[in-house]
Amino acid sequence: MTTPATSAPRVDGRTPEQLREVRITRGWLDHAEGSALVEFGRTRVLCAASFTEGVPRWKKGSGSGWVTAEYAMLPRATDSRSQRESVKGKIGGRTHEISRLIGRSLRAVIDLDVLGENTIQLDCDVLQADGGTRTAAITGAYVALADAITWGRRHTSLSATAEVLTDSVSAISVGIVDGRPLLDLEYREDVAADTDMNVVVTGSGGLVEVQGTAEGAPFSRAELTQLLDLAEGGCADLARIQREVLAEQR
Amino acid sequence: MTTPATSAPRVDGRTPEQLREVRITRGWLDHAEGSALVEFGRTRVLCAASFTEGVPRWKKGSGSGWVTAEYAMLPRATDSRSQRESVKGKIGGRTHEISRLIGRSLRAVIDLDVLGENTIQLDCDVLQADGGTRTAAITGAYVALADAITWGRRHTSLSATAEVLTDSVSAISVGIVDGRPLLDLEYREDVAADTDMNVVVTGSGGLVEVQGTAEGAPFSRAELTQLLDLAEGGCADLARIQREVLAEQR
Amino acid sequence: MTTPATSAPRVDGRTPEQLREVRITRGWLDHAEGSALVEFGRTRVLCAASFTEGVPRWKKGSGSGWVTAEYAMLPRATDSRSQRESVKGKIGGRTHEISRLIGRSLRAVIDLDVLGENTIQLDCDVLQADGGTRTAAITGAYVALADAITWGRRHTSLSATAEVLTDSVSAISVGIVDGRPLLDLEYREDVAADTDMNVVVTGSGGLVEVQGTAEGAPFSRAELTQLLDLAEGGCADLARIQREVLAEQR
Amino acid sequence: MTTPATSAPRVDGRTPEQLREVRITRGWLDHAEGSALVEFGRTRVLCAASFTEGVPRWKKGSGSGWVTAEYAMLPRATDSRSQRESVKGKIGGRTHEISRLIGRSLRAVIDLDVLGENTIQLDCDVLQADGGTRTAAITGAYVALADAITWGRRHTSLSATAEVLTDSVSAISVGIVDGRPLLDLEYREDVAADTDMNVVVTGSGGLVEVQGTAEGAPFSRAELTQLLDLAEGGCADLARIQREVLAEQR
Amino acid sequence: MTTPATSAPRVDGRTPEQLREVRITRGWLDHAEGSALVEFGRTRVLCAASFTEGVPRWKKGSGSGWVTAEYAMLPRATDSRSQRESVKGKIGGRTHEISRLIGRSLRAVIDLDVLGENTIQLDCDVLQADGGTRTAAITGAYVALADAITWGRRHTSLSATAEVLTDSVSAISVGIVDGRPLLDLEYREDVAADTDMNVVVTGSGGLVEVQGTAEGAPFSRAELTQLLDLAEGGCADLARIQREVLAEQR
Amino acid sequence: MTTPATSAPRVDGRTPEQLREVRITRGWLDHAEGSALVEFGRTRVLCAASFTEGVPRWKKGSGSGWVTAEYAMLPRATDSRSQRESVKGKIGGRTHEISRLIGRSLRAVIDLDVLGENTIQLDCDVLQADGGTRTAAITGAYVALADAITWGRRHTSLSATAEVLTDSVSAISVGIVDGRPLLDLEYREDVAADTDMNVVVTGSGGLVEVQGTAEGAPFSRAELTQLLDLAEGGCADLARIQREVLAEQR
Repeated sequence: MTTPATSAPRVDGRTPEQLREVRITRGWLDHAEGSALVEFGRTRVLCAASFTEGVPRWKKGSGSGWVTAEYAMLPRATDSRSQRESVKGKIGGRTHEISRLIGRSLRAVIDLDVLGENTIQLDCDVLQADGGTRTAAITGAYVALADAITWGRRHTSLSATAEVLTDSVSAISVGIVDGRPLLDLEYREDVAADTDMNVVVTGSGGLVEVQGTAEGAPFSRAELTQLLDLAEGGCADLARIQREVLAEQR
Repeated sequence: MTTPATSAPRVDGRTPEQLREVRITRGWLDHAEGSALVEFGRTRVLCAASFTEGVPRWKKGSGSGWVTAEYAMLPRATDSRSQRESVKGKIGGRTHEISRLIGRSLRAVIDLDVLGENTIQLDCDVLQADGGTRTAAITGAYVALADAITWGRRHTSLSATAEVLTDSVSAISVGIVDGRPLLDLEYREDVAADTDMNVVVTGSGGLVEVQGTAEGAPFSRAELTQLLDLAEGGCADLARIQREVLAEQR
Repeated sequence: MTTPATSAPRVDGRTPEQLREVRITRGWLDHAEGSALVEFGRTRVLCAASFTEGVPRWKKGSGSGWVTAEYAMLPRATDSRSQRESVKGKIGGRTHEISRLIGRSLRAVIDLDVLGENTIQLDCDVLQADGGTRTAAITGAYVALADAITWGRRHTSLSATAEVLTDSVSAISVGIVDGRPLLDLEYREDVAADTDMNVVVTGSGGLVEVQGTAEGAPFSRAELTQLLDLAEGGCADLARIQREVLAEQR
Repeated sequence: MTTPATSAPRVDGRTPEQLREVRITRGWLDHAEGSALVEFGRTRVLCAASFTEGVPRWKKGSGSGWVTAEYAMLPRATDSRSQRESVKGKIGGRTHEISRLIGRSLRAVIDLDVLGENTIQLDCDVLQADGGTRTAAITGAYVALADAITWGRRHTSLSATAEVLTDSVSAISVGIVDGRPLLDLEYREDVAADTDMNVVVTGSGGLVEVQGTAEGAPFSRAELTQLLDLAEGGCADLARIQREVLAEQR
Repeated sequence: MTTPATSAPRVDGRTPEQLREVRITRGWLDHAEGSALVEFGRTRVLCAASFTEGVPRWKKGSGSGWVTAEYAMLPRATDSRSQRESVKGKIGGRTHEISRLIGRSLRAVIDLDVLGENTIQLDCDVLQADGGTRTAAITGAYVALADAITWGRRHTSLSATAEVLTDSVSAISVGIVDGRPLLDLEYREDVAADTDMNVVVTGSGGLVEVQGTAEGAPFSRAELTQLLDLAEGGCADLARIQREVLAEQR
Repeated sequence: MTTPATSAPRVDGRTPEQLREVRITRGWLDHAEGSALVEFGRTRVLCAASFTEGVPRWKKGSGSGWVTAEYAMLPRATDSRSQRESVKGKIGGRTHEISRLIGRSLRAVIDLDVLGENTIQLDCDVLQADGGTRTAAITGAYVALADAITWGRRHTSLSATAEVLTDSVSAISVGIVDGRPLLDLEYREDVAADTDMNVVVTGSGGLVEVQGTAEGAPFSRAELTQLLDLAEGGCADLARIQREVLAEQR
């Protein structure tokens, strides 16, 4: 590992510990019980939460609810067009992996027993991708989820005072690029990273997921520590943005 | 057929021959060679045009290009969530049918020989559906297509003066609801229609597609004439909007 | 459009408004509740109607029945062999589109409430294709459907006097070839057509479907009128043939 | 095994060693290089042979040809409708098994080196099933194959005198029903059989396939001998019918 | 056919009527109700029997049970790696065919009425293939099945004295290689065989399946007799090994 | 979090930082270029490495090689049978995710440029599952990989002295069960864990993958540290076992 040139600016001029511009537009869709268009710089993900009474067969009679997620990317979200998974007739490994990650992350802040036998399905569709789509998706999906619960409290048998959410949750990517730990990688940084990590953190600072991968050389415990520090800072910012967005009257 | 109560207002207050508010946002995507977010009222379709040099194998060596389209709907575009076709592992008949219609409609105004051995792929993804998604898709896809051709003239071997487009093209739905011919049906009108027709018209008024279907009772030649008159008017308006949008400097 | 050379004979010697030889063989199958081998010239479609008591889940308890259709082509129906859709593992867009068209066309002349909670499934398999397979399929499927209803009246709880059919239905293709409107295109004419239209008409002359497509240049309202006139004449002939065939004792 | 009541008539009045009425209509299709509609009683199979120059990739450059077959059943070939394999999206085990059997049986009488780098694809589609569909398919496919070779000798680089076929081939089912060995089982006999065997025999009496299955109790060597005797007799009759059909001028 | 050089040793030194070394390891798996790792020389098949109470829907209420089997091969069981069927997304014809054969063979020695409404599913996974995988699978699956029934008698409502098995069953391959009938072909012999036959025989010597295929020239009745003699001898040996293995205390 | 009762024995009597009995049987398969049967207690995974000259199309001409992996589980590897993915027709998310993890882990210790245009495919098939199948798979796959490289040095154009491997790699699971960090969870511990982490470490102690998931409550940085300490210890033991196994003469 070469000595990090910590003073050099990043490709888009940010400091190492700086998020891209984050924008969360609540209620972007008219039909969904909760929805948010989340933007991390040029990455744009449309998150829709569908609240339905009842649960999948394997949970029937349990008295407990279910929250699940599906992630997908529009074919021209990326720089060169990729084939639709519906046309291929099967879902790729990456799509599966991210869908499962989003679902687990949201379930970490949901009390399924309080939700009762209701299901909330999150759909996170990447309209434009520029790195960090899964972390943007988790961050936006939380907002859509919160609105869907509010909807459920008003329109279903879910109690109006049910504390379904135990905390908030957001996610950010971190990585080591040219020997330097960076927060919230955009695409050009992502492909250049030696180590790439996605971290999911609750509003109160608990770790939900830590997924670090050495793309090139293995990484050390010291580097892991630096990356986690960066990620915790980024998620604290995201949690604040989520709070502000959800505090707006609608 | 009962006597049409022509003076009654429509569900959203429009007159029978009035379009919903139509908005076309050019260049909604950063990566695509051409793109447009098209809105017909609450119906929103994201159209992306991908320009690639080369043609599918069956056209190689022909000297002629190819334009094709894929249509899809996000799972929560509609009032109740529908399953993803990628998850089902196959594309439904309706999706296939509309994709083919969009492709044919665009090819009607393209000179594939002038395009040369280049391919333009249109992706029309319905972000929100409220009736008329296929007609909005055709109308928006034309704008994305025009921009992709402009891009090709600047960045590929396509001649900078090549007249690839022979005309513009737009589409509108018409139908008979409660015995009254109406233009540009929104969803609630669509489900109530006895006859439903989609008409694709060029900027100079030529018919490209006429697809009329009796949902309930068969329709007469006289009704067909009324519907075509309405559709021609609507498409003339759409053609004007397309011209205005494409005239803007970018 | 060049002036039509209306006096020139067609490739097979027919006049512009003349059908190919149409033959409908009722009861071609021993097991099916209704069946017909329909021939429009060299186009041969085997239509089987399967009557089953009960309806799909989404209609249960509605008191109303269901009629649906599947269209398919044998691999060597055409001049060069095409791959089986079962081998490809998926059904193509064209197959889907035609299956849906046949189903809609038949439902236009069925009173599903009178049918009660019974289902009739039409299978239209093209044994040999020479243009007009979808129109032959609709025309033959009507005969199979009528026989299946007769069977149902004799062997099920369906009332022996139930007027399930409200009318008959047939279909024909029309097109503009070398500037001349022609009825019932055979394959060689079909590929040469500038405009291609399929029209579905009831026995009493109501329009059920009008699907016109500009294959080359757009078409005008005047041409559309000519094509509809031709189609109405052709369907009147087909309706008469259907009546004669169904009048035969079996 | 109870003593066979050899004098009792079969369900359709045949003697134990009697074939059903066998009819082979050559050239039933206009496009295929060879075709035959073969009928064993009510079982009807349409066999099409497609001759194409060239071979699959894995045989390229070998100087040798290829013959393969696909078997399928129309959904309403049987007494109750079965779902299409194209709709299911996959081919069932029985279909695969029979397709492979037909291909192997035909290759047993073909000299692939003399065929040269040409491919003949057989499609055997069961239009109506009443037992013995695979044996009818093999018997009819041989006729279609012979005609496709004749076509190849006239229209391709295949030598006009090439002896591609080394023998003829036919097939028949035999089984033990109520303790009595029977030839050419129709459906009602087939379901009642304790042992069921399909035998493929060349024109000169060589065995190509012997597939015997105990449906109920195991069978003895003595029973196997009886069944093979019956089958050899039946295939000798079929070989004679094939010769007669192929001797007709066309 | 050339005169068989009956005195020449086989590739691995065996005599024509000699089995490879056969080893059956009972209870190779900890979870399965019955299991056996069966080895015929280098061919190794892991057979697992899963006993579940209840039957598939189509047998519910019949009072009778079900036994079925699935066969599969690990990708590197063979000399060169083959693609996984799960990755291809479909099961090949050979896999289907063998799965069906194993299921039929086991059902031939099961009294499904005595089994009652219970299901036993056999999974036969080829860990290493060197010819004769299907015959090893049947032979090993019988042992796993027997143990699963013993388990069922101890742990389910199945009567502790229920005689579910009516006999034992085993299978062996035979073939004619260089004009000489050989027992239990290993892979190198299998590819060189002119005729290849798999024979399934009960412990008391009844025939369950006889599947003979001419790979090259057709075979005669005399050859068939020789092959059956060899197979009956081999299966008698296998039945003895099965008895010994099952007699061991566990 | 309750105070950990660190003195209580684990379900199988191990100490918190103790591995299960680990056994690696090299060369379990006769055909594969490298293979190992790896056992972590009752978890048994068969790892096969297939060495082929050439690379996938997207790497052709790069001068660099490729290593990839596929993971799968036999249907009865687990306590209750699961359906085959080949029968379902698609690969599940978990399978995809683990296959990708194994491939990435092995590529972290391979110098693909030294490997040259050769491909090594790892197949990791779980014969029996009792927790930790993915970590056992990585650990065993490394041994199979090392043997396949040795094979390549002897039998292909790969240089006999090529240092393709830059390090060894192994993996272990760790988790917090009842508030206590434990190494190498068996299945019963795995389902009871609040936090579950898989760690992939090189022989020289570098981190390749860290995947921690809160199954119940979020985890703290302090807990993460404890888990990583445990995992590093476990992987050091595994690296030693790998070295010993690979040091044996074969």
